[in-house]
Amino acid sequence: MHNSFGHLFRITTFGESHGSQIGVIIDGCPAGLRINEHFIQLELNRRRPGQSKITSSRKETDEFEIVSGVFDGKTTGMPIAILIANKDVKSKDYSHLSNSFRPSHADYTYATKFGIRDYRGGGRSSARETALWVAAGAIAKLLLKKTRIDIRAYVSSVGDIQAPHYSGLNLKKTESNLVRCPDEAAAQKMQTKIEAVRKSGDTLGGTITCVVKNTPAGLGEPVFNKLHAALGGAMLSINAVKGFEFGSGFSGASMKGTEHNDIFLNEKGKIKTKTNFSGGIQGGISNGEDIYFKVAFKPVATVMQTQQSINEKKQKIKLKAKGRHDPCVVPRAVPIVEALAALVIADFYLINQTRKFSG
Amino acid sequence: MHNSFGHLFRITTFGESHGSQIGVIIDGCPAGLRINEHFIQLELNRRRPGQSKITSSRKETDEFEIVSGVFDGKTTGMPIAILIANKDVKSKDYSHLSNSFRPSHADYTYATKFGIRDYRGGGRSSARETALWVAAGAIAKLLLKKTRIDIRAYVSSVGDIQAPHYSGLNLKKTESNLVRCPDEAAAQKMQTKIEAVRKSGDTLGGTITCVVKNTPAGLGEPVFNKLHAALGGAMLSINAVKGFEFGSGFSGASMKGTEHNDIFLNEKGKIKTKTNFSGGIQGGISNGEDIYFKVAFKPVATVMQTQQSINEKKQKIKLKAKGRHDPCVVPRAVPIVEALAALVIADFYLINQTRKFSG
Amino acid sequence: MHNSFGHLFRITTFGESHGSQIGVIIDGCPAGLRINEHFIQLELNRRRPGQSKITSSRKETDEFEIVSGVFDGKTTGMPIAILIANKDVKSKDYSHLSNSFRPSHADYTYATKFGIRDYRGGGRSSARETALWVAAGAIAKLLLKKTRIDIRAYVSSVGDIQAPHYSGLNLKKTESNLVRCPDEAAAQKMQTKIEAVRKSGDTLGGTITCVVKNTPAGLGEPVFNKLHAALGGAMLSINAVKGFEFGSGFSGASMKGTEHNDIFLNEKGKIKTKTNFSGGIQGGISNGEDIYFKVAFKPVATVMQTQQSINEKKQKIKLKAKGRHDPCVVPRAVPIVEALAALVIADFYLINQTRKFSG
Amino acid sequence: MHNSFGHLFRITTFGESHGSQIGVIIDGCPAGLRINEHFIQLELNRRRPGQSKITSSRKETDEFEIVSGVFDGKTTGMPIAILIANKDVKSKDYSHLSNSFRPSHADYTYATKFGIRDYRGGGRSSARETALWVAAGAIAKLLLKKTRIDIRAYVSSVGDIQAPHYSGLNLKKTESNLVRCPDEAAAQKMQTKIEAVRKSGDTLGGTITCVVKNTPAGLGEPVFNKLHAALGGAMLSINAVKGFEFGSGFSGASMKGTEHNDIFLNEKGKIKTKTNFSGGIQGGISNGEDIYFKVAFKPVATVMQTQQSINEKKQKIKLKAKGRHDPCVVPRAVPIVEALAALVIADFYLINQTRKFSG
Repeated sequence: MHNSFGHLFRITTFGESHGSQIGVIIDGCPAGLRINEHFIQLELNRRRPGQSKITSSRKETDEFEIVSGVFDGKTTGMPIAILIANKDVKSKDYSHLSNSFRPSHADYTYATKFGIRDYRGGGRSSARETALWVAAGAIAKLLLKKTRIDIRAYVSSVGDIQAPHYSGLNLKKTESNLVRCPDEAAAQKMQTKIEAVRKSGDTLGGTITCVVKNTPAGLGEPVFNKLHAALGGAMLSINAVKGFEFGSGFSGASMKGTEHNDIFLNEKGKIKTKTNFSGGIQGGISNGEDIYFKVAFKPVATVMQTQQSINEKKQKIKLKAKGRHDPCVVPRAVPIVEALAALVIADFYLINQTRKFSG
Repeated sequence: MHNSFGHLFRITTFGESHGSQIGVIIDGCPAGLRINEHFIQLELNRRRPGQSKITSSRKETDEFEIVSGVFDGKTTGMPIAILIANKDVKSKDYSHLSNSFRPSHADYTYATKFGIRDYRGGGRSSARETALWVAAGAIAKLLLKKTRIDIRAYVSSVGDIQAPHYSGLNLKKTESNLVRCPDEAAAQKMQTKIEAVRKSGDTLGGTITCVVKNTPAGLGEPVFNKLHAALGGAMLSINAVKGFEFGSGFSGASMKGTEHNDIFLNEKGKIKTKTNFSGGIQGGISNGEDIYFKVAFKPVATVMQTQQSINEKKQKIKLKAKGRHDPCVVPRAVPIVEALAALVIADFYLINQTRKFSG
Repeated sequence: MHNSFGHLFRITTFGESHGSQIGVIIDGCPAGLRINEHFIQLELNRRRPGQSKITSSRKETDEFEIVSGVFDGKTTGMPIAILIANKDVKSKDYSHLSNSFRPSHADYTYATKFGIRDYRGGGRSSARETALWVAAGAIAKLLLKKTRIDIRAYVSSVGDIQAPHYSGLNLKKTESNLVRCPDEAAAQKMQTKIEAVRKSGDTLGGTITCVVKNTPAGLGEPVFNKLHAALGGAMLSINAVKGFEFGSGFSGASMKGTEHNDIFLNEKGKIKTKTNFSGGIQGGISNGEDIYFKVAFKPVATVMQTQQSINEKKQKIKLKAKGRHDPCVVPRAVPIVEALAALVIADFYLINQTRKFSG
Repeated sequence: MHNSFGHLFRITTFGESHGSQIGVIIDGCPAGLRINEHFIQLELNRRRPGQSKITSSRKETDEFEIVSGVFDGKTTGMPIAILIANKDVKSKDYSHLSNSFRPSHADYTYATKFGIRDYRGGGRSSARETALWVAAGAIAKLLLKKTRIDIRAYVSSVGDIQAPHYSGLNLKKTESNLVRCPDEAAAQKMQTKIEAVRKSGDTLGGTITCVVKNTPAGLGEPVFNKLHAALGGAMLSINAVKGFEFGSGFSGASMKGTEHNDIFLNEKGKIKTKTNFSGGIQGGISNGEDIYFKVAFKPVATVMQTQQSINEKKQKIKLKAKGRHDPCVVPRAVPIVEALAALVIADFYLINQTRKFSG
């Protein structure tokens, strides 16, 4: 259960940062869906390291191979397996860490829990894993496209630089800059800040906002599979994520009911709400309005400065990172957030096909 | 899958707000645990309506009955079923709502998804369900007590009134006032505010912070069952919750890596961290430090003022609530947050017993 | 996971033989299904003890109460909880067994596994549980009726008395005698045999055959959720079952391929097979032919003769049963077999709605 | 859910007969288990085609690669992925079948269910999949070896030639002949029979018996995860299997209770049973006696004779197999039966570690 996600559209993954390859099995994708491999690659390219001067310089082309579940360009209903080779592996950058616990990494907890760990490149705790989520999420997106559901995430803050609310943004511009913020002015400041921080050997946190349009009313379940709970659980699975909010989020906690309630309207025969503090989800179920949520990322733990720590023998040590790392993870995390959202929504889309009797 | 939660310590629930009774089955509780029924009742009393002048006046004593899985005062390894009767049901307060969609409730989404809904008292969308979580969580707490794990939640804000950081609070004082805020000065202001808002027929949001002490290092899984992701998914299942953050949370997004990293220390032979921005969880796995997280609740949607809405025929209507409702939900949600935390941690505690080879 | 069965049409049960009540939660039943409570009671009546002179004399009317998930006579998509009281409980019949291990019962294994057991009436190992399966199965049958799927089981042997192959039987006659064998001549011999065995204080085994007609082609999954594997796993969950076979079954193991292959035909535009050794399932998936399978039941372990055994202190003892027991379990197990078959097929029916892309 | 098996020791598989490779992810194997790759290869060699003159001549060496989850020769607690290349693929042998439905194969049901199928070599319906089960089962066996649990299957019949009861056999001799029957006389007759049937272009069914020794009492769950139900569900997942029985099995159905009951004895301080009609499992839970069960395999559907059938347009056709096929599948299925048994028992072994309170 530890490495699977989803119910009816379900992924199971494997692989470590410096193993020969990583892979994902997608179980439950309906048969007959046309697979556009070019689209999958484009999605992977948005996440891959080495894509720009503000990301890690590890060179992974992230070419993938679909080795089952697709025949004549269409899904067959069988499990879809996607493999991605690890090409630019420099494990010797990590050999000095084999007995050390890097601050705010998973080294200590893995060693304690399992009694053994693959320290090379962080092993399975590496965000290398997220390439698989993006590949699987691309297939979920292909499924959702047929239903017109549209998922777009963007960088809404880097450090203390904030982008405006999504309603004032053109989300099609997200890919127009390296930071993936559709507001050009904010994007420029963010990029400058990231470059400065990198130069100082430090790192920065940030937030990503995601907007899902055209979701039909009815996705999500009343009690334990609430749509936002599934989205939150998914986002909190991404490395470095510290928080999740949807709709009014934390700011809703200081509002009054009369301000916060979203009044229902009949807009040309269609049920709409006047405001959308609910974030498109009521009682755990989509209501047809925009779904939107925000995800907080802490600064990357690997800094290029000497830090104090301890080793497995509990002795004091000094650590200095080698390896190749991102000064700020949010630009590359945009497609990851979208991918997980797509996986969740595809799953609930399938579940929902079984919830009303049509006999 | 829709009404179950957890893996090895797993609950499945049923019941609507105005049905004859509600119930929970706990599957997987280890055999041989002594059950203290008095403790379960005390926990239920903390959640029940009618407990004070700042809560709903619905009179439910929430007496429960354990009808299976316990023999001679101990768990037998069989499913534990707990039933709670609904006693103070006033369904006619809701009959005028049978065709109407209350703003920011689940009425519209349930009707759309299922084509039918039990409108009495909100049916299954009611927070009545959470009594079951508290009962099941009490059993999880009994299990965890044996391991010294200690879970304490409290109200950390009501509207814009904030309590100080948990490190400066005596969490044993949480039950000393009606609001369940261990800081007396803040508690007093919160209570005054809630009373004022109730008088005006309005409602208020707030936040709850939860602190888990004495968790051993090793709970949680590396990729999809990260401890914080499970906690977040659980908290987002509570009615009215809009956000979740742990450790540094959203504030961590504007920090630098060198500030945020928690330096490891050898403190008298024990591994500790100097700071705890990680919130006691690294790489998804507990590291032995305090686990702490915050949950945001929107204001209750049922306000005692006339609101505009529409009915099932999409006609404009005016709505005015009858029924009995809380002006601010957070005081009663404190034991709910604790209960879900206990369920998650008990589950991971059992899972962890299977993760290292001891042959 | 221990007390749940099924995926999308999923039941979770609780209760012991001599507790105050037993219950089942059905999670995932689609909304909008009309519930015929009279039909559910009729199904329960077929299973209940005390129904005839060849069954246990325990008097349980098995009146049930649906306490959630049904509103205005229809399912709401919420969990359906059904409770059944235990009325005719004579726990003192079992007090002498509290420290003893009855031969071929679950006493020893429960005590060893859990370190504690509810010995009254066999606790949770009692077939009392199966009343819940019949109630839940009745709801599955109501769902399947809408699709014309028809499930009929009957007693195909008692001891060494065999009924003819199902193709020569009128399965509507199954309820016309106490044994539930549609062949009157065989039924008569079976009844005589059961009465003789009861008189001698002994018990008898037997087999049940189940035939499912009008299943559409397409139910079942290719690898691990093969339809027959799910049916087999279900049937092997029934108390006293020792074997399962479908189609040609064990006799197929001594056939040649040219004899065993079911030749496809175009019969008036419909694809049919000439023979049906496949038992209606090929590659784990229904092909539209009759599904049929056979289930073997051992003789009831509780005999009315003195037997040797040991107690918890491993001392030799003599045991003589009190309590009320069936001399042969198969007549009452017919509705149980049907119920589990209905649960499996309803589950696969829902799953199948998500397996082909219709975008 | 369709391509996963098990709960805590859980496998998820992918791959088609003629794809580039097949693979399995093992999730939940405890950390710290030493992996003997040579042993895994030996197990695969027992299953691979081309191993002898009585098996398919497809040449697959079934060399495998472990690409994650093992570090320094030990499991790390991360998912273990094993890949096996398909080398001797002759897809053109199948091109004439692309629109045809072979009798008693999965062609028709796959086409109907999914609307598309990979016809090359049977696609995912091929027993090629079972190589993955054997590889994963080998790891389960390595885990179980540490607990002294010992699993041995053998061919107990081919057509109408039967081997004696297992209690009279030396199961270490199973590998001493091509048929994998430890009784030399029976093995000789079986081999002669298989060769004759192959010559005539026909095929034969058979049975496999499996014996598990040294299982501790306590594995299995009371109601829905009964140990024998899990074993039966597993065995019925193997291609061509038509029946499963354990202990007395179908013959138990014609016995009396006084004959069938297994009397408990104190044998030098250890609890034993005089007979073992229970097959080592009582109330769904192992009792420490030998677990034994029998699995029935139908004759292979691919015969080397011309057969009538229909195509996708429902037109009558004549079919003659090309490809390379087994005349009798049971000799190669012996390691498959063992592997699935090992997977089930390893899973229950882990589950059992969480069922008794030890606080």
